[in-house]
Amino acid sequence: MKESVINNLKTLREKGPLVQSITNYVVMNNTANALLAVGASPIMAHAKLEMADMVKIVHALVVNIGTLDEFWVDSMLLAAKEANERNTPWVLDPVGAGATPYRNETLTRLLTFKPTIIRGNASEIMALAKANVQTKGVDSTHSSDEALAYGKQLSKETAAVVCISGETDYIIDGERLTKVKNGHALMGKVTGMGCTATALIAAFAGITSDPYLATVAGMTTMGLAGEIAARKAEGPGTLQLYLYDALYHLKESEVKQWAKLEESHA
Amino acid sequence: MKESVINNLKTLREKGPLVQSITNYVVMNNTANALLAVGASPIMAHAKLEMADMVKIVHALVVNIGTLDEFWVDSMLLAAKEANERNTPWVLDPVGAGATPYRNETLTRLLTFKPTIIRGNASEIMALAKANVQTKGVDSTHSSDEALAYGKQLSKETAAVVCISGETDYIIDGERLTKVKNGHALMGKVTGMGCTATALIAAFAGITSDPYLATVAGMTTMGLAGEIAARKAEGPGTLQLYLYDALYHLKESEVKQWAKLEESHA
Amino acid sequence: MKESVINNLKTLREKGPLVQSITNYVVMNNTANALLAVGASPIMAHAKLEMADMVKIVHALVVNIGTLDEFWVDSMLLAAKEANERNTPWVLDPVGAGATPYRNETLTRLLTFKPTIIRGNASEIMALAKANVQTKGVDSTHSSDEALAYGKQLSKETAAVVCISGETDYIIDGERLTKVKNGHALMGKVTGMGCTATALIAAFAGITSDPYLATVAGMTTMGLAGEIAARKAEGPGTLQLYLYDALYHLKESEVKQWAKLEESHA
Repeated sequence: MKESVINNLKTLREKGPLVQSITNYVVMNNTANALLAVGASPIMAHAKLEMADMVKIVHALVVNIGTLDEFWVDSMLLAAKEANERNTPWVLDPVGAGATPYRNETLTRLLTFKPTIIRGNASEIMALAKANVQTKGVDSTHSSDEALAYGKQLSKETAAVVCISGETDYIIDGERLTKVKNGHALMGKVTGMGCTATALIAAFAGITSDPYLATVAGMTTMGLAGEIAARKAEGPGTLQLYLYDALYHLKESEVKQWAKLEESHA
Repeated sequence: MKESVINNLKTLREKGPLVQSITNYVVMNNTANALLAVGASPIMAHAKLEMADMVKIVHALVVNIGTLDEFWVDSMLLAAKEANERNTPWVLDPVGAGATPYRNETLTRLLTFKPTIIRGNASEIMALAKANVQTKGVDSTHSSDEALAYGKQLSKETAAVVCISGETDYIIDGERLTKVKNGHALMGKVTGMGCTATALIAAFAGITSDPYLATVAGMTTMGLAGEIAARKAEGPGTLQLYLYDALYHLKESEVKQWAKLEESHA
Repeated sequence: MKESVINNLKTLREKGPLVQSITNYVVMNNTANALLAVGASPIMAHAKLEMADMVKIVHALVVNIGTLDEFWVDSMLLAAKEANERNTPWVLDPVGAGATPYRNETLTRLLTFKPTIIRGNASEIMALAKANVQTKGVDSTHSSDEALAYGKQLSKETAAVVCISGETDYIIDGERLTKVKNGHALMGKVTGMGCTATALIAAFAGITSDPYLATVAGMTTMGLAGEIAARKAEGPGTLQLYLYDALYHLKESEVKQWAKLEESHA
């Protein structure tokens, strides 16, 4: 599994996939910088009038509902529909799932266009699995362990790879389960770390035909970069910047040495 | 007064209040990171279709008109109305007050929903007090001293706590006046420092029933973090990052040692 | 030419021009910080209801189509029209020109209001010159050298100063051509560096009557700040922050010593 992460990282840097993101205002700068640092090329268009044209030229799509509204939801639906029709991989980030009925309704509509991958924190994945769990805003109030059964159910219902991110990240498809135990607690004090992980997953999905392995590569890369950044950071402010430096410099040997991956059957 | 700041900071970190912000695009990332660093939990939703639901679950609300438009103003009014009805504390940041008639009209409408706290620079507070002062864009061209009389008038007319931020910050309610003399000149060269102060005030307002003391705590915390960051920063770029580190690590002993607060009657 | 850069930088810091930007969500924070660091004062308003009022009080305008949509395009057109009528200098940043028909149509409409300066990468300038070049998203797939002939044509057709940014930047008007050979490769791994250059150009255009020299000053300042930042940076994350520090501290002697400018006839 480590070999797969290493190979995918190498391929990503060679190919420089184009990733289109309809994402939230808070993290646009961060996720664009993370994509550039890891070797991808970001686009952040959202106009309905160019959505189909944009999706046509990209290798992967992110739909992140963090700062959704009635105009942007239309664009998200258009983009997801186009990606689905073209078999372009797309990643759904259900920010704040369960916090309001509007988010839930929007997510139900987006699911009809069959996301390739869904990444959320424990509360979001539980809410999305219709668990009627009360989400506290956009931060998780549940552990990834608790959410595992819901994640499996969601993966079965949607046929998407599901990633529950947290102290341990779970990556699930119908048959496989991988746990990623990289990352650092300080990452929870920087906004948009989950959204950034989603963007990295999309970059990997743009260069490999296996979305499960793309998700493992994205979460491992993110966790390792966070760990490396945290060694040097003096707080959440510097962590955010060192993270891009770490993504940019991440070496095969570091993945080999530090990646903590556990595989089992789903 | 220092004891109150220390106690409120401690409570804030224990409770982790949920703060909903309808704020400007320029500073969303910064204010979310500042809220996380100080111990609060940020939400940045703006959709009309979920505004009432969001305001219901949060402990405080920020309305910042920096990049207002006709769609966002509707959301701001909805959120302010809901907060007012629910007695949820809300903080108004009148960015660019006086710069255009549209800003002034919008502020007049927002004032009808009785903000708990208003924080602006001298020019903004003077404009908001209908002083017919010409504002130069979003930066202040007046000193806080000049604005003090206007701030008192505004506090009386609106029953809000008024904070005029600048080299010296003035915090005013009907009876009390506190001056905060912390901060650093380099902070004026980083965008969104005022907006960040507003966000911190809201976080404190979410955990104490006295909005006056919440404002003192917010401005003191912001000023101290800025000072600590400036000692290490080599310019405005590094200052911005070190500020989050400083907010995250700010100690009771540092508040005790360095806070410069002066109290008097309003 | 170096003397002109030095004098314009000095004037910029003395005058503190007000720069209004209708720009993309990804870079708003960055370009506001760059403007503050270099000595200008940023405004980021976009509401149609205040556009004419805002353009009236500013010294220069940026229109950057990076995250355009039907609402923002209306504001861009209003602002460009107002700037053109008032002889306020305005800079067009044609992000992603050629990527979609919608971008091309929007650019055609904006060109009718006669931008004072146009800055783009090679692919964007070629697309804008109706070269029917396929743009790969928002990053350039052509060298500045290839784009030179197109840039000259575009400058002739529009009477605008044209800047093609890249490893070597070309600044063109009807008679003159200056090459700026400053900058650093790592800048390509940070989002919004081109947009930031555009903002700096606008700041200089706000304090000098010669838009050609303003463009040379903007690109030289940006390139030098990037070089200085890159000496210290450990990756793209830290580069972005050190860039603001470098802009803030940039000395006349550094411009004299390190600026690499070559002049010739267009």
